[in-house]
Amino acid sequence: VMKVKEKCVGTAKNVKKMAKDDPRRIIHSLKVALALTLVSLFYYIRPLYAGFGVSGMWAVLTVVVVFEFSVGATISKGLNRGFATLTAGALGVGAQHLAILCGKKGEPVVLGFLVFLLAAMSTFTRFFPGIKKRYDYGVLIFVLTFSLVAVSGYRVDMILDLASQRFSTILIGGATCMIVSIFICPVWAGEDLHNLTAKNIKKLASFLEGFGGECFKLVDNDLSTKDSKRNGKSFLQSHKSILASKNTEESLANFARWEPCHGRFRLHHPWKLYLKIGALTRQCAYQIETLSGYINCDVKATLEFPRRIKESCIRMSLELSKTLRTLASSIETMTHPKKGGIHIESLKDAARELKSILSTMSLCSSNDLLELVPDATAASILVN
Amino acid sequence: VMKVKEKCVGTAKNVKKMAKDDPRRIIHSLKVALALTLVSLFYYIRPLYAGFGVSGMWAVLTVVVVFEFSVGATISKGLNRGFATLTAGALGVGAQHLAILCGKKGEPVVLGFLVFLLAAMSTFTRFFPGIKKRYDYGVLIFVLTFSLVAVSGYRVDMILDLASQRFSTILIGGATCMIVSIFICPVWAGEDLHNLTAKNIKKLASFLEGFGGECFKLVDNDLSTKDSKRNGKSFLQSHKSILASKNTEESLANFARWEPCHGRFRLHHPWKLYLKIGALTRQCAYQIETLSGYINCDVKATLEFPRRIKESCIRMSLELSKTLRTLASSIETMTHPKKGGIHIESLKDAARELKSILSTMSLCSSNDLLELVPDATAASILVN
Repeated sequence: VMKVKEKCVGTAKNVKKMAKDDPRRIIHSLKVALALTLVSLFYYIRPLYAGFGVSGMWAVLTVVVVFEFSVGATISKGLNRGFATLTAGALGVGAQHLAILCGKKGEPVVLGFLVFLLAAMSTFTRFFPGIKKRYDYGVLIFVLTFSLVAVSGYRVDMILDLASQRFSTILIGGATCMIVSIFICPVWAGEDLHNLTAKNIKKLASFLEGFGGECFKLVDNDLSTKDSKRNGKSFLQSHKSILASKNTEESLANFARWEPCHGRFRLHHPWKLYLKIGALTRQCAYQIETLSGYINCDVKATLEFPRRIKESCIRMSLELSKTLRTLASSIETMTHPKKGGIHIESLKDAARELKSILSTMSLCSSNDLLELVPDATAASILVN
Repeated sequence: VMKVKEKCVGTAKNVKKMAKDDPRRIIHSLKVALALTLVSLFYYIRPLYAGFGVSGMWAVLTVVVVFEFSVGATISKGLNRGFATLTAGALGVGAQHLAILCGKKGEPVVLGFLVFLLAAMSTFTRFFPGIKKRYDYGVLIFVLTFSLVAVSGYRVDMILDLASQRFSTILIGGATCMIVSIFICPVWAGEDLHNLTAKNIKKLASFLEGFGGECFKLVDNDLSTKDSKRNGKSFLQSHKSILASKNTEESLANFARWEPCHGRFRLHHPWKLYLKIGALTRQCAYQIETLSGYINCDVKATLEFPRRIKESCIRMSLELSKTLRTLASSIETMTHPKKGGIHIESLKDAARELKSILSTMSLCSSNDLLELVPDATAASILVN
């Protein structure tokens, strides 16, 4: 009994945390439920039921399948479903007429052959990366509707009536989804992408802020290592999430393209540039991942060398983090990063200083500098 | 007209390339078409149609939605769909009975409330990472079936008959999918994961093989840079795909867990270890990404220094690549990597030599060494 109680408490805590992390999740759940209840009115209200009959069930099906977390995803799925149903339905009716011409015995053979052919071809097109990314769901529904219409046409006589009834209920379901998702607390994929981009750059900045101190504290005093590791864990680990952010960014950018203009974003907002910035941010994160290796492993180099480069290294990583922060906030507010220029200048100064100290290779630092330049360029492209 | 012709030729070439890259794609398309045609027999054959009627359409629907590329994914979706339909159907019938108790007027209100409540709760559970990863589709079908049964029960009287008919057709559709996907040229997610892991390690090895030469050729002779860049591009870029392989690996490991034993893989194969190896491989790839930065940027360090470390660096990266190759082939054949020990020893030798040359920090090389050790450990864990 105790164990069950513990588990219940644990689950309750988990739910609370999930809701706190992103309150939009609860709102989304309520929105789905609302859309579903609205659509099921078709069954409860007599005059509506008389018009659509059992086909009303397709509206329920559409709502459950189409309603997604962000507006862009919902619109993309809804439009995919609508167009695929329309074209596949028309083709299915055509296939039906063709099959009737072949006589009573030939009909099922022709229909079976057509279904086989279309299913194989459509399934193959789903492997193309371009189609998979944007129209995967549409092709799925195309196969589904075509086979349903072609096959059930063999038994049901009023195929046209049935098809039009189904299409109109799917239309109603899709429209309900879109309206609810756009007008009640909308979740824009574009805005999420925008914030994610800025947040990732900020994460890099906060890593670099702490990195300088962390790296040389280790050299100075080996005893304090354990303590600093425990305290510093949050900012030292924060860049890890950036490394795996590629897929999230791509799907967000994909959905953002379907969204109508909203807030600060116009219709043809350059979403692809966010992907470029994301790629550069990830490249920085790779290098930071390498840098962070130096904190955890104890470098057994001569102690004299690190002391000599300590100051300029710390200064450089601080300047770099300031530059990144400026970039992030200029992306957030969508203004040109003017102040960034100052930091870049003093950054270059620090790097020059460091280089003059090192007559040997300065791997760690030349890196830091190099990773910055493309990022700054990308940001200014975006803002312009 | 010419443009259309050109486009057609381009598409045809594209299709040919896709098919050549992975012939299993064509086989998969044919398999889907076969399953769909088999299921549509329900409509064509009179005695079968008499038994199931229009519900046969649910079999078609199930086949289109459930059939996936790998066996694991198909089984996972099929089982999810089956169990979700069963539980949601039972709950829906229960809700129906409860609603009838509330009288003619209260019925739609109670039903609407229950649908709202269940939809909101289920949608929220889909945000939990654990559920999202494995049961996302099941929860979706649960909501779908529950609302369909609860809502249509209000109008259709023979709700139990209808529900059982639908469930049996879904069962038939799901079984058809699984049988076709397992017994006709099966695509195992587990095997794909196994090969991917070995292939990624090999990619790292081939990068390191070429890296030693590439890096120092640049220092020796600046004129040959452009040539070597063009020739070396394939192996210098090959590690990029590893960086983004996390999601692929996770979903493959997820599907692999659903698969029955096949070939060299027993039922409780340690799929999670592949994820660990994958993570380590990716960490190596991050460091290689950083290393590759040194090839493309011209390091303006003193020319004397690189010459001194050249030989031991090249030797080290060659030894490292040999070790990785041994690891990859021992993963492929699932044997213990005995020969790897020799390479590790000579690798350590090379590293010691290099360290003795460098009294300053040897960032590049200490890295190479460090990244190796965990990988070797993981591989031996897997094999044991």
